[in-house]
Amino acid sequence: MTKVKISIIGAGSAVFSMSLVRDVCLTEGLKDSTICFMDINKERLDTVYSLAKRYAQETKAKISFSKTLERKEAFQDADFVINTALAGGHERSEIERKVGEKHGYVSGGMRLSYFHQLGLMLSIAQDMEDTCPDAWLILAANPVFDGCTLMTRQTKIKVIGLCHGHYGVYDIARVLGLDRNKITFQAPGLNHCIWLTDFRYEGKDAYPLIDEWIETKAEDYWKNWEGNWGDGQMSRAAVSLYKMFGLFPIGDTVQQNPTIAWWHYVDLETQKRWFNKYGGWPANWSNYLEGLKKHLERLDRIYRDSSMLVSKEFPPKLSGEQHIPIINALVNDQEGKFQVNIPNRGCALEGIPSDVVVEVPGVVSGRGVQAIHVGALPKHLAIHLLRTIVTRMELGLEAFLTGDKSILLNMVLSDHRTRSYEQAQALIEDLLALPFNEDLKKKFK
Amino acid sequence: MTKVKISIIGAGSAVFSMSLVRDVCLTEGLKDSTICFMDINKERLDTVYSLAKRYAQETKAKISFSKTLERKEAFQDADFVINTALAGGHERSEIERKVGEKHGYVSGGMRLSYFHQLGLMLSIAQDMEDTCPDAWLILAANPVFDGCTLMTRQTKIKVIGLCHGHYGVYDIARVLGLDRNKITFQAPGLNHCIWLTDFRYEGKDAYPLIDEWIETKAEDYWKNWEGNWGDGQMSRAAVSLYKMFGLFPIGDTVQQNPTIAWWHYVDLETQKRWFNKYGGWPANWSNYLEGLKKHLERLDRIYRDSSMLVSKEFPPKLSGEQHIPIINALVNDQEGKFQVNIPNRGCALEGIPSDVVVEVPGVVSGRGVQAIHVGALPKHLAIHLLRTIVTRMELGLEAFLTGDKSILLNMVLSDHRTRSYEQAQALIEDLLALPFNEDLKKKFK
Repeated sequence: MTKVKISIIGAGSAVFSMSLVRDVCLTEGLKDSTICFMDINKERLDTVYSLAKRYAQETKAKISFSKTLERKEAFQDADFVINTALAGGHERSEIERKVGEKHGYVSGGMRLSYFHQLGLMLSIAQDMEDTCPDAWLILAANPVFDGCTLMTRQTKIKVIGLCHGHYGVYDIARVLGLDRNKITFQAPGLNHCIWLTDFRYEGKDAYPLIDEWIETKAEDYWKNWEGNWGDGQMSRAAVSLYKMFGLFPIGDTVQQNPTIAWWHYVDLETQKRWFNKYGGWPANWSNYLEGLKKHLERLDRIYRDSSMLVSKEFPPKLSGEQHIPIINALVNDQEGKFQVNIPNRGCALEGIPSDVVVEVPGVVSGRGVQAIHVGALPKHLAIHLLRTIVTRMELGLEAFLTGDKSILLNMVLSDHRTRSYEQAQALIEDLLALPFNEDLKKKFK
Repeated sequence: MTKVKISIIGAGSAVFSMSLVRDVCLTEGLKDSTICFMDINKERLDTVYSLAKRYAQETKAKISFSKTLERKEAFQDADFVINTALAGGHERSEIERKVGEKHGYVSGGMRLSYFHQLGLMLSIAQDMEDTCPDAWLILAANPVFDGCTLMTRQTKIKVIGLCHGHYGVYDIARVLGLDRNKITFQAPGLNHCIWLTDFRYEGKDAYPLIDEWIETKAEDYWKNWEGNWGDGQMSRAAVSLYKMFGLFPIGDTVQQNPTIAWWHYVDLETQKRWFNKYGGWPANWSNYLEGLKKHLERLDRIYRDSSMLVSKEFPPKLSGEQHIPIINALVNDQEGKFQVNIPNRGCALEGIPSDVVVEVPGVVSGRGVQAIHVGALPKHLAIHLLRTIVTRMELGLEAFLTGDKSILLNMVLSDHRTRSYEQAQALIEDLLALPFNEDLKKKFK
């Protein structure tokens, strides 16, 4: 049993941090660990630190905790750094979404917060090179695809990007009426753009069950559908993408990725038709933020009322997130299979360049992370991903690295919903004029 | 001096064929050659055969001629096959353009004639594998980029694609007031999408002369411009692309490629603003066809009036086209430098996959065609070409090879001017319903 130090950057995101704390407390192999919380917001840092201590006490876990406002202090002797930070927070991103809507982009167009995120991610990885060069960096913040690709190209830090989009496959099982414990699957791709290459129920190919459902039940399902606004795994959009590319899209792929299927994101009516009667995720991002806010307020109440039990809010069972099990696998050689975002070295996903980060199943153990070779996606799909997702990321990274404003312009022109050169120019100028984008206004010439 | 047989497929395109005949007659090293004309249109075949014979007689050239309606006969013992054929002719393409306009695509959207062209090109190369596997195939018909890539991937035939777009650099010289004999240049890329990587006047970097012209003279030039409708090399569009990507676009790149800059092709007004007051090439394709038709009628008059001199219509000086000089270089080891479209083996143009055909300067001699390594395009431009041109070609070839109708749909959805899924579907159905597309209606399921 090794004592490990796990540092959480952006730990003030209390819901996520507490979910990690719970998983560490429940993991025998990590029971002597130290968790170091780092955030630039002192108040939220104090909240999460206090909640975590109380939680450990309540559950009699031996974990130690520390907190700091200084990133480098968090990196000192760190074995793992989990980056969950959102530069500028959700508020700025929301302001930028509204600027986008003003310029004709339903649910928002380009957001310059993207560049602040890349900047933060890269500086974290670079600081780690100075302070804890052997530590693992687990990226839990978006954009996972662009961020992991940037960091693995620009630094020598070992990076793993994580997302829970692949759990969307359990929504398929639910709708088809299958026992989720009896399915197996493989869903590789690029983060937020992954595809069901293999799907089995009790060991047998279960794709025919999807086909049968589409044939006989889909129309009724869509007609009588009564889910929540985020429910879109079995939407018309998903089935249409399946018919177009030959593989079923999983999770965020369906309704959070305007780049791969702009025609689902033309306006609110179109979104309602393709996703669900609420317009799906793209139209309800503010609902998500509202839910997050409520959860934070609840944690704040628990923080202020020491008579409340933290462990009642976070009952002691594993969260289902991969972060801590992966750390346990690496530290204690507990071999396991996980859905990871890592560079495509060795071309685990054929047809995608080797210096691009792919989302593939990987074996994690004391040896590290080893991608499982999943072969190639159907050629039509692979070309489409190169055209839409990979080159958009390449434009983004090149803009970030060079500060070339013409690349910004091209990125907005590449958004299929852009109607004219002038519209693209105007959006960029308005975004650059926001007070919190002053640094970017200087950067992009 | 070797006797060579040069077979021209689609030879009924009399203007082009006569230009080749003239060049052969003027090339000492090819004076014992045989030119075999092949076309499926007997009338036009007879015309060109007769004109060529009269031309050779008038100029006292010793070239022999033959004619045939059978492709395989043309390939028998051929050393060179020049493919200038347009499957279905300009008429069908024009009908498809109008269908596109009806569906909201100014100057036309997708044309299925593309697939007929690919089919014809590939079957020619495949027939050559049977009949004249060592002959060179010179592609003089569009699409050069897609066609050459398809043929070099699917057959072992040696292919060279030719285009005269790079001569656009002489328009730059003219507008800048430079002696065209004192400039040198390099303009690699993908066919119809090439970029001035090097430009010298009397040995010195001449890019500053372009910059100075833009700074001090461009606005006046555009204000007082009095060119013809095709004149766009120094248009606002060209300067804008230069500013965006860092290299000046050459020839067809500026105004015949909606894929690389859709925002220049939104509607006629937009085209007028970017290209010239006539809307440039995209708005005047019918003018081009009109000119072609007049030229053909003139040749027909000469054909019918044996008292007229063919050599008056085609005065005995080299046409400036590369086809015959390249054949001379290959046959007689007359080393020369040419602008050729060949597979990017050895990555002469870095950043473009090696199985894609690039347009680069090449040394042609008895050794064959050897690409000159031109290095990499600016990264922003390279990403943009991959995103727009290369992946569009890949979609096209995959659709052609598989008959997968969903790829057609994706191709139309990828046209930035498409506004909705239904619009794309409707365009495809209307194109497939055209009588001359019956075969494609069966092919695409």
